[in-house]
Amino acid sequence: MLRSHTCGELRMEHVGQDVILTGWVQRIRDKGGLIWIDLRDKYGITQLLFEEGSTPSEIIDVATSLGREYVIQASGQVVERVSKNDKIPTGDVEIKVNRLSILNAAKTPPFTIEDETDGGDDLRLKYRYLDLRRKTVREKLQLRHRLMRETRNYLDNSDFIEVETPVLIKSTPEGARDFVVPSRMNPGEFYALPQSPQTFKQLLMVSGFDRYYQLVKCFRDEDLRADRQPEFTQIDCEMSFVEREDILNTFEGLIRHLFKTLKNIDIGDVPRIQYDDAMRMYGSDKPDIRFGMSFHELNDVAQGKGFNVFDQAELVVGICAPNCAEYTRKQLDALTDFVRKPQIGAKGLVYVKYNEDGSFKSSVDKFYGEEDLKKWAEKMSAKPGDLMLVLSGDINPTRKALNELRLHMGNELGLRSKDEFKVLWVLDFPLVEWDEETNRYHAMHHPFTSPRPEDREKMISDPGSVKANAYDLVINGVEIGGGSIRIHDRDLQQEMFKLLGFTDEEAKKQFGFLMDAFEFGAPPHGGIAFGFDRLCATFGGSDSIRDYIAFPKNNSGRDVMIDSPSTISEEQLKELSLNVVLNRPEAK
Amino acid sequence: MLRSHTCGELRMEHVGQDVILTGWVQRIRDKGGLIWIDLRDKYGITQLLFEEGSTPSEIIDVATSLGREYVIQASGQVVERVSKNDKIPTGDVEIKVNRLSILNAAKTPPFTIEDETDGGDDLRLKYRYLDLRRKTVREKLQLRHRLMRETRNYLDNSDFIEVETPVLIKSTPEGARDFVVPSRMNPGEFYALPQSPQTFKQLLMVSGFDRYYQLVKCFRDEDLRADRQPEFTQIDCEMSFVEREDILNTFEGLIRHLFKTLKNIDIGDVPRIQYDDAMRMYGSDKPDIRFGMSFHELNDVAQGKGFNVFDQAELVVGICAPNCAEYTRKQLDALTDFVRKPQIGAKGLVYVKYNEDGSFKSSVDKFYGEEDLKKWAEKMSAKPGDLMLVLSGDINPTRKALNELRLHMGNELGLRSKDEFKVLWVLDFPLVEWDEETNRYHAMHHPFTSPRPEDREKMISDPGSVKANAYDLVINGVEIGGGSIRIHDRDLQQEMFKLLGFTDEEAKKQFGFLMDAFEFGAPPHGGIAFGFDRLCATFGGSDSIRDYIAFPKNNSGRDVMIDSPSTISEEQLKELSLNVVLNRPEAK
Repeated sequence: MLRSHTCGELRMEHVGQDVILTGWVQRIRDKGGLIWIDLRDKYGITQLLFEEGSTPSEIIDVATSLGREYVIQASGQVVERVSKNDKIPTGDVEIKVNRLSILNAAKTPPFTIEDETDGGDDLRLKYRYLDLRRKTVREKLQLRHRLMRETRNYLDNSDFIEVETPVLIKSTPEGARDFVVPSRMNPGEFYALPQSPQTFKQLLMVSGFDRYYQLVKCFRDEDLRADRQPEFTQIDCEMSFVEREDILNTFEGLIRHLFKTLKNIDIGDVPRIQYDDAMRMYGSDKPDIRFGMSFHELNDVAQGKGFNVFDQAELVVGICAPNCAEYTRKQLDALTDFVRKPQIGAKGLVYVKYNEDGSFKSSVDKFYGEEDLKKWAEKMSAKPGDLMLVLSGDINPTRKALNELRLHMGNELGLRSKDEFKVLWVLDFPLVEWDEETNRYHAMHHPFTSPRPEDREKMISDPGSVKANAYDLVINGVEIGGGSIRIHDRDLQQEMFKLLGFTDEEAKKQFGFLMDAFEFGAPPHGGIAFGFDRLCATFGGSDSIRDYIAFPKNNSGRDVMIDSPSTISEEQLKELSLNVVLNRPEAK
Repeated sequence: MLRSHTCGELRMEHVGQDVILTGWVQRIRDKGGLIWIDLRDKYGITQLLFEEGSTPSEIIDVATSLGREYVIQASGQVVERVSKNDKIPTGDVEIKVNRLSILNAAKTPPFTIEDETDGGDDLRLKYRYLDLRRKTVREKLQLRHRLMRETRNYLDNSDFIEVETPVLIKSTPEGARDFVVPSRMNPGEFYALPQSPQTFKQLLMVSGFDRYYQLVKCFRDEDLRADRQPEFTQIDCEMSFVEREDILNTFEGLIRHLFKTLKNIDIGDVPRIQYDDAMRMYGSDKPDIRFGMSFHELNDVAQGKGFNVFDQAELVVGICAPNCAEYTRKQLDALTDFVRKPQIGAKGLVYVKYNEDGSFKSSVDKFYGEEDLKKWAEKMSAKPGDLMLVLSGDINPTRKALNELRLHMGNELGLRSKDEFKVLWVLDFPLVEWDEETNRYHAMHHPFTSPRPEDREKMISDPGSVKANAYDLVINGVEIGGGSIRIHDRDLQQEMFKLLGFTDEEAKKQFGFLMDAFEFGAPPHGGIAFGFDRLCATFGGSDSIRDYIAFPKNNSGRDVMIDSPSTISEEQLKELSLNVVLNRPEAK
């Protein structure tokens, strides 16, 4: 190696030793005859010392020629520092340099390589390789590596086998849009990149692999949002001969293991909630249960009192914000503005202050007396000092809006700490949902999800009421994973495809291999997949998955560092039997 | 779980316990009032017992209705077997069944699910999920998983960090043909799938990650051979601040660890050979050193004796096959036929039998007397009883042909045992090779490989003689890995691209980001990549990587199980701004 030690290694016990260090120049201080250089590598920072008079002048010359981010090799003796730095592990010592060489010069980087940088998002994406030098960024990828490793440790120790499934698969119309790959050897035909290895992992269960997992790249050609990337990583798992309870226990165990080993946090028992209850109590299928403020429906106490808005509403529902009765006019107006935003969509907000003295003050005093509001307070378990916030309207949009308001209040009141983690199972999702646009049912998870055994009969008579044998894992209000007990019976699978509007031929063309497989002895099986990028972000206390991806793409799906995608040569297109037709008149 | 134990778990100590097993029906034997069923799962086989008279008749009815590969759940008591089977670990016990249910019926599989099956290649690929049920096949994937795991263990413990690099990258004209992915959001532009994460891992070194690895899928759109797949897996590694010796030691350590943990084999010291010597001694850059029979050049003793064929040849070169002097006419003719095959390409074969009595008998007795042949024997260290086999012609094709003959003889003489493993480093490859067809130099490894420091000067004056600072790892004659110390200097990289015929603009367009990165403080670095599929096959003693891939493609790049690639809808093509043009007149 070009070094004898790393820059994070030297301590008092090394004093007197001759060492060779390599790394990047982080900082140079020149102070009347003394030069100090902070030398940085992945492992830490070590101070180099150059002393006029004692350090040979040709070395001083090299040292003074250095700039930030130069790559150097320095040899010398470890000595005790006069003024120690207790902020870094190597702060007791420095290197009295007696040999110095420049391994590579560096232009001045376009932004500072410090924990807090002056570079904007675009610049840092273009020079991602420099952004990755920053300790805060590198640590995110180190966290990712540790999560990966502990995930594998847990699953390996639980008798799972990691199997790599193919990346070049087959395009299917169900689900999100596929990325496709033209096949040169099969002109006019295309592979697709997997949105998940769903059918392959089910086939592995048919093969008797019993317990499968894979940390696997998946792909979705969707319009991107801040927390979406065209390629993402899943922890993909499947088990045979299991019931839902077995899956929940196994993967609760995984999450428990990850929190224990990475954060030394015991997450305790993981509560479970029905989908219907989650929607009723939180207006969300991924409630953040770090704080309370659950919903209280007020129809029976708020309707029939002459307040037209409430009387005509399908639902009157509120939350109780603790100790917020003293909110000012301005604060209340801001909350009203918040719920009226187009993306939230409420028409207005009713508030009721339950004053410390037991009196009430509301925005609807005209319609509701003290006695009425007392009943509201009872319904909501409000206490003097609390603020009740009430929305009304059609059930689904009202719940959705109140969910946003609840999360907003949670933020305002500091109830959503990044250091607190609350894990939750959400169970019994609807199997299908009706889509007005396409005038057909869509699978809420995917077409391979089985109905709850007790709902099997309703598949034909009342599909909309059938619950799926499915489950989502939610951490701090973020959906981290989801899965289901799968269909393993050909007839039921065929029925499911029919319900989703597939003709028999379509179903056979797309998924015939899976249905065939079910006829050769498919075991009962089920599984789950976790969004690994999101899991990393959640562990890191961040909202953005992009920080946890080494080389992410921007919101147009571009890698601005390597400038991709890009045009390809006419010859490549010919070989692929393709023509590019920009602005095709028929194109959407 | 639907089971209390697996089918590989029960022993004498469980006798008397009530258990529930699940699995597949492997075999049914019905013998006058007694029925035995072998129940199989991933973990083993357990025998179920049904006894007329004592087993309830409705259970007997179910049992007799079962067929091969039915999935069942059986409950009962563990009892000691009357006639034990010491070939399986559960052979001491059986289950006296008192409850039996069919979890899924099974059609008769199209081939037998046994270690030796009656299914042909095509049928087994189409029903790969059934082929994977066979123990011998499943064990190959279990070996793969263990290799993966131990690779990660070793690298994790050596301070490497696994970083996922992108799958959607940029097409480059260098190297093999890329698979491309049209971008819907950037019409007319394409991503490419990586042939390797080469540039990304180098950027990670520029980022200061110090030691990187990744088990990563790579893609090459090449015409397929038996041991090639369009998608394959690499162990991809890179290290900073290293010299060649550090890389060799680190990855020799990896291979040593894998052989020790998986096969309990100590591979001993790994010999090293120069590329030039490998070509001279074995006619191959990946010699199989499980056996000797290295080449001996005979020009000085064989030429000038009036044998025109030899006199006009650039090279006369032979091997000595030990104890083969008694080869019959027929055997010798077969060897001649072998070297004359078009893919071997020799015009003929000269043999010299060194008889046990010290006399010689050769196919060129007309030109060479006893004394001459004695000199040959001395050159080749032949002993009485040996057979000398000699080829002649132009240097390269002759070496290539003799390499094939040597391997053939190795097989014939049983010197290439699947249970023996010989690891070898091949060093100092040429940096570039001249390509007659394109009339330019090609990189022998890739354009990022650095020249040996001492050859740096010859880059311009005599590029063909420059050796690369590169290395290949060879096991049993198979190239398992290769790598190099990389260029980390912008000017040298630019010079390299120029040597390879890139214009400055082309180089900048394709690899500008990398050359830019080199200007911001790139450390000296180097790395290696191992073909993981081939490593698995080598460990498994097989020539075919396909067996070690869960869902392989056939030689036309098709997955015949899922029937991929396939056509996509006109709507998908529109969204991608593409037209399919079959048989484009301009197309090759």
